[in-house]
Amino acid sequence: MFKILHTNGRARRGEFTTVHGTVQTPVFMNVGTAAAIKGAVSAEDLKALGCQIELSNTYHLHLRPGDELIKDLGGLHKFMNWDRPILTDSGGFQVFSLAKLRKITEDGVSFNSHIDGRRVFMGPEESMRIQSNFGSTIAMAFDECVKIPSPYDYVKSSCDRTYRWLERCKAEMTRLNSFDGTINKNQLLFGINQGATFVDIRIDHMKKIAALDLPGYAIGGLAVGETHEEMYHVLDEVVPYAPDDRPRYLMGVGTPSNIIEGVARGIDFFDCVMPTRNARHGFIFTRHGTINMMNQKYERDLRPLDEECGCPTCRNYSRAYIRHLFKAKEMLAMRLSVMHNLYFYNELAARIRKAIEEDRFEEFRAENSEKLMKRL
Amino acid sequence: MFKILHTNGRARRGEFTTVHGTVQTPVFMNVGTAAAIKGAVSAEDLKALGCQIELSNTYHLHLRPGDELIKDLGGLHKFMNWDRPILTDSGGFQVFSLAKLRKITEDGVSFNSHIDGRRVFMGPEESMRIQSNFGSTIAMAFDECVKIPSPYDYVKSSCDRTYRWLERCKAEMTRLNSFDGTINKNQLLFGINQGATFVDIRIDHMKKIAALDLPGYAIGGLAVGETHEEMYHVLDEVVPYAPDDRPRYLMGVGTPSNIIEGVARGIDFFDCVMPTRNARHGFIFTRHGTINMMNQKYERDLRPLDEECGCPTCRNYSRAYIRHLFKAKEMLAMRLSVMHNLYFYNELAARIRKAIEEDRFEEFRAENSEKLMKRL
Repeated sequence: MFKILHTNGRARRGEFTTVHGTVQTPVFMNVGTAAAIKGAVSAEDLKALGCQIELSNTYHLHLRPGDELIKDLGGLHKFMNWDRPILTDSGGFQVFSLAKLRKITEDGVSFNSHIDGRRVFMGPEESMRIQSNFGSTIAMAFDECVKIPSPYDYVKSSCDRTYRWLERCKAEMTRLNSFDGTINKNQLLFGINQGATFVDIRIDHMKKIAALDLPGYAIGGLAVGETHEEMYHVLDEVVPYAPDDRPRYLMGVGTPSNIIEGVARGIDFFDCVMPTRNARHGFIFTRHGTINMMNQKYERDLRPLDEECGCPTCRNYSRAYIRHLFKAKEMLAMRLSVMHNLYFYNELAARIRKAIEEDRFEEFRAENSEKLMKRL
Repeated sequence: MFKILHTNGRARRGEFTTVHGTVQTPVFMNVGTAAAIKGAVSAEDLKALGCQIELSNTYHLHLRPGDELIKDLGGLHKFMNWDRPILTDSGGFQVFSLAKLRKITEDGVSFNSHIDGRRVFMGPEESMRIQSNFGSTIAMAFDECVKIPSPYDYVKSSCDRTYRWLERCKAEMTRLNSFDGTINKNQLLFGINQGATFVDIRIDHMKKIAALDLPGYAIGGLAVGETHEEMYHVLDEVVPYAPDDRPRYLMGVGTPSNIIEGVARGIDFFDCVMPTRNARHGFIFTRHGTINMMNQKYERDLRPLDEECGCPTCRNYSRAYIRHLFKAKEMLAMRLSVMHNLYFYNELAARIRKAIEEDRFEEFRAENSEKLMKRL
């Protein structure tokens, strides 16, 4: 299912085949939290942006419109008119970051919905059932995403519980995939490594979850407050204990530089709201660094956002026009900017893949890792 | 320039040729107030929606980003990446509806900008210079749009002044079109008939402006508070005095029914923010009447917005999905709905044109004029 086509140092050029099509890795997953990309970007737009795989959020869709409704309507692919792979997260991260008054037990987590305050319970089995109702291509394990910093003992006992939850996720997913009425009987479960910045806990946890022989493994709980150096250190130490023949997904990361540095440490999958969120505020990624479209210096600038970019926005519109749209509070400003930034991220992944194939990833990394973060 | 291909009763099937292409009439003009369609609809989207001609607002663009900036950047067509005809209004309507503390003299109008409060003066010459800076295909005359109701004597003297302003507009437009640096030296000036609901003032004014031999004539100052019956009565009485061989434009109108009734009275051009504004609030036009996507009954409705519609939204998305997007406050809800409503209006004009060509416009009118307004 996961085939490594080429390696260059620790960087891997792979191919992940699913019932919804094949994903070329390293890959950036485009985030459609509530079954839609922010910024009025449609599924048809996404294809024009080179998006291979979309990510949606279990927590949001469970609360609204509800996973049973989505199942009744034929599953998430049909609902949002997207026929390529979809990864759904487990809800864990949002339960621990958005929900109020949560209470954790061995069974799972009770919390108040951030939408209407109603009490909701979610444990490993509930998360699997919800994701099975979506029929997503890849389901993520239900885990506790511990805050950084947290006390060592708490992180250790939390990881032990997350491991027990993973065993329950695996059993439940196997059970759900055996039902005739299941939308995607080939749904894949990825395990999630936790452990905050405690490398020994991370390694111990990774060894245990690797033994469960899952189709993919994620590193979770990073980019939540630690420095980039701490994050890279964790990856340096832990990734070698993830199975070589399974894809590795660094959750919620990150900047263009984080992605390049993740690939350098053997990561294959990434996702982040940064390209969409930044775009909606006028922050644009280019091949030479970032620009802020609110800056007056772009008022009469007839160049595209990025002169070397082939995205629909750069092919058709000037910085002057997009700046005007932001100033006039026209929604089109956000859409054109989101399309550009998503194209940039998808294209970055494509350039990384090519660099690996051509054995010049280190050169690419040296040239781009800092440059792409430069404020122009 | 304007060629009538066929008539059916008072309804006219025409063709208006400009330097930016030919417009098939009757036509609905899609409103892009600040050089963009509301709802994140791009110029590329507009072409897929069958839009022949876009309308932009002089008042808004003069205040932000400024007409001189647009001229320096190559004109409005280049600025917003639209190569088909553009009509710009004169600013008069917004000066009289949006601006604060206005003061009218024979010269023109002083007012405070609704954006930053700064004092601005606009008269016939200023309006022509601004529109010449845009390089729009069709410029509208600078007029006073009088409130309904207004006293007879005020309306009469206002119309006399609007006539004198039109003479100044014509002279200034002729002068501007003769300059080498002018962006569109073939810019066309349309006159505007005023007179509130006083038919004798309307007719007198129309006769006088018709004598100025302009390339087109608009009926302005309607749909601003009077009943539909009063509006239709004015059209019944006044349109016969507009030159037969020039296009007639009913400004700011209206509902699908208003458009059909306008065509029945000899109108060729229409524009209205209704399709975009309604769409952004979930009000959708269909061939069987209007629907409100906030209604719970669409929660599990897998049908497209309009089962007989061929728009990009209806080809790809269900009512259930679009309702979810509105509930989740996703911008994509607005975009998909605006695209549908604009397609509906452009398609309505196409259906009207076909009905006239086939000598069955009265049948089309009887079948649709009320039905399209029915709340389903």
